[in-house]
Amino acid sequence: MYSFESDYTEGAHPKILRLLAETNLEQTKTYGEDPYSRKAALLIKEQIDRENAEVFFISGGTQTNLIAISAFLRPHEAVISADTGHIEVHETGAIEATGHKVIPVPSCDGKLYPETILPVFRFHVEEHMVKPRMVYISNATELGTVYSVDEITALHSFCRENDMLLYLDGARIGAALTADGADLTFEHLGRFTDAFYIGGTKNGALLGEALVVQNPALARDMRYIIKQRGGLLAKGRLLGLQFLALFEDGLFWELARHANTMATILRNAIREIGYPEMAESPTNQLFPILPNDMIAALRKDYIFRIIEATDDVNSCIRLVTSWATQEADVRAFANALSRLSV
Amino acid sequence: MYSFESDYTEGAHPKILRLLAETNLEQTKTYGEDPYSRKAALLIKEQIDRENAEVFFISGGTQTNLIAISAFLRPHEAVISADTGHIEVHETGAIEATGHKVIPVPSCDGKLYPETILPVFRFHVEEHMVKPRMVYISNATELGTVYSVDEITALHSFCRENDMLLYLDGARIGAALTADGADLTFEHLGRFTDAFYIGGTKNGALLGEALVVQNPALARDMRYIIKQRGGLLAKGRLLGLQFLALFEDGLFWELARHANTMATILRNAIREIGYPEMAESPTNQLFPILPNDMIAALRKDYIFRIIEATDDVNSCIRLVTSWATQEADVRAFANALSRLSV
Amino acid sequence: MYSFESDYTEGAHPKILRLLAETNLEQTKTYGEDPYSRKAALLIKEQIDRENAEVFFISGGTQTNLIAISAFLRPHEAVISADTGHIEVHETGAIEATGHKVIPVPSCDGKLYPETILPVFRFHVEEHMVKPRMVYISNATELGTVYSVDEITALHSFCRENDMLLYLDGARIGAALTADGADLTFEHLGRFTDAFYIGGTKNGALLGEALVVQNPALARDMRYIIKQRGGLLAKGRLLGLQFLALFEDGLFWELARHANTMATILRNAIREIGYPEMAESPTNQLFPILPNDMIAALRKDYIFRIIEATDDVNSCIRLVTSWATQEADVRAFANALSRLSV
Amino acid sequence: MYSFESDYTEGAHPKILRLLAETNLEQTKTYGEDPYSRKAALLIKEQIDRENAEVFFISGGTQTNLIAISAFLRPHEAVISADTGHIEVHETGAIEATGHKVIPVPSCDGKLYPETILPVFRFHVEEHMVKPRMVYISNATELGTVYSVDEITALHSFCRENDMLLYLDGARIGAALTADGADLTFEHLGRFTDAFYIGGTKNGALLGEALVVQNPALARDMRYIIKQRGGLLAKGRLLGLQFLALFEDGLFWELARHANTMATILRNAIREIGYPEMAESPTNQLFPILPNDMIAALRKDYIFRIIEATDDVNSCIRLVTSWATQEADVRAFANALSRLSV
Repeated sequence: MYSFESDYTEGAHPKILRLLAETNLEQTKTYGEDPYSRKAALLIKEQIDRENAEVFFISGGTQTNLIAISAFLRPHEAVISADTGHIEVHETGAIEATGHKVIPVPSCDGKLYPETILPVFRFHVEEHMVKPRMVYISNATELGTVYSVDEITALHSFCRENDMLLYLDGARIGAALTADGADLTFEHLGRFTDAFYIGGTKNGALLGEALVVQNPALARDMRYIIKQRGGLLAKGRLLGLQFLALFEDGLFWELARHANTMATILRNAIREIGYPEMAESPTNQLFPILPNDMIAALRKDYIFRIIEATDDVNSCIRLVTSWATQEADVRAFANALSRLSV
Repeated sequence: MYSFESDYTEGAHPKILRLLAETNLEQTKTYGEDPYSRKAALLIKEQIDRENAEVFFISGGTQTNLIAISAFLRPHEAVISADTGHIEVHETGAIEATGHKVIPVPSCDGKLYPETILPVFRFHVEEHMVKPRMVYISNATELGTVYSVDEITALHSFCRENDMLLYLDGARIGAALTADGADLTFEHLGRFTDAFYIGGTKNGALLGEALVVQNPALARDMRYIIKQRGGLLAKGRLLGLQFLALFEDGLFWELARHANTMATILRNAIREIGYPEMAESPTNQLFPILPNDMIAALRKDYIFRIIEATDDVNSCIRLVTSWATQEADVRAFANALSRLSV
Repeated sequence: MYSFESDYTEGAHPKILRLLAETNLEQTKTYGEDPYSRKAALLIKEQIDRENAEVFFISGGTQTNLIAISAFLRPHEAVISADTGHIEVHETGAIEATGHKVIPVPSCDGKLYPETILPVFRFHVEEHMVKPRMVYISNATELGTVYSVDEITALHSFCRENDMLLYLDGARIGAALTADGADLTFEHLGRFTDAFYIGGTKNGALLGEALVVQNPALARDMRYIIKQRGGLLAKGRLLGLQFLALFEDGLFWELARHANTMATILRNAIREIGYPEMAESPTNQLFPILPNDMIAALRKDYIFRIIEATDDVNSCIRLVTSWATQEADVRAFANALSRLSV
Repeated sequence: MYSFESDYTEGAHPKILRLLAETNLEQTKTYGEDPYSRKAALLIKEQIDRENAEVFFISGGTQTNLIAISAFLRPHEAVISADTGHIEVHETGAIEATGHKVIPVPSCDGKLYPETILPVFRFHVEEHMVKPRMVYISNATELGTVYSVDEITALHSFCRENDMLLYLDGARIGAALTADGADLTFEHLGRFTDAFYIGGTKNGALLGEALVVQNPALARDMRYIIKQRGGLLAKGRLLGLQFLALFEDGLFWELARHANTMATILRNAIREIGYPEMAESPTNQLFPILPNDMIAALRKDYIFRIIEATDDVNSCIRLVTSWATQEADVRAFANALSRLSV
């Protein structure tokens, strides 16, 4: 059985394990004040060209989202999300558990646009309603789609005009920025969002996300909040070291590119045969709609998630590739698809 | 410079890194449902002889405490802690952030006793006050002291009689159970507490604590709560593997015993010269009270925490040993102490 | 200017003020343990024929909702509401502020049905999502519509089968149960919901809602929760006395019937002229869709809320009658309508 | 039986009921935007000489405290209180339920001083601990004692120097400012605190407290927070009208002075006979320590609270007078005391 279920079925890129082993017996400062974490933070700030930014390393995505959002908002302020957004659907109410409403906006492609946010913003005008104060987007989205520079700057302008914050969930930012045709860059993130996080877990790290806060006022006392939410790792170097390994020489982007390339092989095979996709994803998540009997046949050898029945005889499935996916394995899957579609 | 600042200044025991490397490219189930996590959970349940218990692996101690306590209590219920307790002093109000009051009880030795809890329990009798519903203890305590079987069973009986839960923070449970003279065993924990956690971070793991819930009713829907608080690691095997490495052959206890042995060398040196200690700790944390000029001299070569001035010319410091402490280093420190006290 | 803006623009029914004055200098027990509160609670329990129920008097509707919902649910549990529901739209995120997600279900008539809840229930199946555990309905709804006995029992059965609670927001329960054609009774509420509240504020009281909890297990320690949320009034008799005045002789229903009768006069006038309504409300809130110039003309003499533009030349407005509305005033408004529509 | 149990055993001052009756059928704006609430707010601002202040009327003291504190603080910030403080002891963890730690400071007289706060402030220096950001005081305190101008200005200076807020719980501010020997004035409150509340419930109102926020930045979006916590009364005029009645002609102070005068009669009787008091209260709460058999005899005719046994044969009781206390009743109690002490 081979799994295309997610991009976190394997461990970490070997370079990371090597670095952990090499530095293992060094004594360092704790709680993220070690030299590796400091260096990794510096690298990231340089690479987004925002020297005033602050970078915090946190274990996982849900934790990063709940820490950032609850740190930035006052009690009555709410966050707008696509109805497919991770915070809306897949975090067991983590944001609400910190007291804040998530306002879902219907979305077919997993993205938000000024014109889809505007009605929400106009509706919430007085104190009997929450005050929308943050726009939450994911890039790549939960459907694998990506934002263009124009789309991000439009959201950025909308937020500026309406005194709202723009926060980007980058659990799969690697795949998003290295996707074919993507024009958004790492620097753009630093310029056009108020904060974002870089997903390590889904791109080669054992665990860990890097929360980047561009605005020093928003970052104030952030370490208190991280500690309070249980996110300040005693051996914080474990996170810093991994981001150092990923960002000192571009490994992060290389791994993401590889995942995308593997997905492209699958995508081409699917398109060649003519199966539709639920979303136009240029990244490492694919959502093909396949006949149910073909899905059944594939599941004898492959593990993947079935998203939903699209009609009586077809269903949408999710295939995910990663830094660890081998070309032989995607080719084998592509061949199986061809064989089964004859 | 050598550091006695904490038991988490190094990485992980080499066996752990080896196991991570060996299994790195295996594809496994995610979010803690992998075979390693299952096997580690099973081992722990066997070793405490509670097959109905449930075991959950969580990144850190503060996160484990806030998840357990907020899962077990209703909104108006409070937890009683020694005023030195980690949840009271060193978790940035993490418990309160989930809505629950921590009621501190003055304690000189870091421990709670039925007779010190009783007044709190008697005082809180009606609905204008919180309802004390849980007793939180740490073992070893924040002062390095440990509970005896008699003390734990007395607390257990008190809790049973008064419809309260007994929860044990075992961030340093390894050191506690392997301390000279300790009569409390791993099985006792399973029998006399409602839930406890086993600290991996401070005893050789990269990160990770194992929350053990003896009562299945208390464990109900716990994975929802863990996810909601941001504690469900995508690559949960990272935690399971470490606990497997630590518990399959007793490595956990061996590491703790080593840390205690190293502390004993320091303790003997201190006692020989005649310096007093703030608390009678038989574990890997020592709290000697030393002359300020000696402290200044030691700090040229050693890193450690100064707890507080005890009078105009003396202060209490904290020395911590760990699984990674080398005998040569503690001997060198002991010699330095002797030299300076002449 | 005469206002049809809401059913809380005046003070209280004179009987209430009289009773307050008569008992004013009596010394009574505080925090709701006075004889008036006890007697009012007893009356309500008798009238719904549930002697095991518990009744709590609370200042306002939002407070009652947040107290009930947060008392009944565990942290990861969520409440399903129509997307027009008060808790979803008009309580400034009060439920989320206690940590719980509100899951909105699209609704045209303000009501929920098993078939509209079912997809939500089916979607939320695992620990990465909240656990739907309560169905929140309002009766009358925010659109003035009401539930039939069949509809309530269908919801009740659905909830029983799926281990969910049914909670009814009765801010306008008086108007709902006395509406023309309504077959639901006070006793039905006691039988088919797990808890509900009786709205005093919108039916003749100065303030106050009566939270009725049928299941004693759900009511456990409720006074702690009420106190914690700031809802335990020192002079609780103020609430008990009012509910006594309203329920000892059926005044509550009489006032509601009056409000409905006044609305019927308006409704008939609107229908006679042929204007459509946004919702088919048989209660004291009407939602006619009128030409914008007519609305402008009416606003010279009347205060009411404009809900939304329905097209370029028409808008939906809300007209609310109450226990205090005088027949002469509704007749005058009806006449104005007729005059303006010529 | 006559009750000295609290200052909220009766209803409201007759003038209040009269005003409610007179205005009962007027239609007004809702949710506190009515002319009475506006006028009352204006009066209070004038009387404290702070025209930039904002005034909000809220049902009860616990609700006011939890709204103010959670509105002012960020998640990791904590509030310092005397260990006798209402928020620490008698609000069922209401502040913690909004996520904030209350740090108790031992106090014999119910008051805080810079020198008792300082150690707390010095202890909490880093992100593993909450950040003390507000000082909460009550005046009169829970022991009936009062602050002098010097004491308040010392706290004010301490807070200014340390970037902390000073918040005053004025549940019994009437009694405090009209006490014999008190030099603190209403204007001082406006000048030396960041926010405070004026207690109506315990000084002649049916219910209601006026939260006064001097700093407009702190008051920002306060109505959202009040609504979210369930504190925005639909018929807000009920609160505004009462404060208008109390403040338009000094009735508030007159009632408080009366309560104090009644207490003085009791105090003199107690002192004459020579019984000690637990606290030196110049206000309407007395804490005499009496022989247990005398207490038993008094309880045949009087209701009052027993605070605690002070030794085997004596106990401290609490006697409270109010605006509604009749001189004949206190004289009768004083006589009973004399008789029983022979």
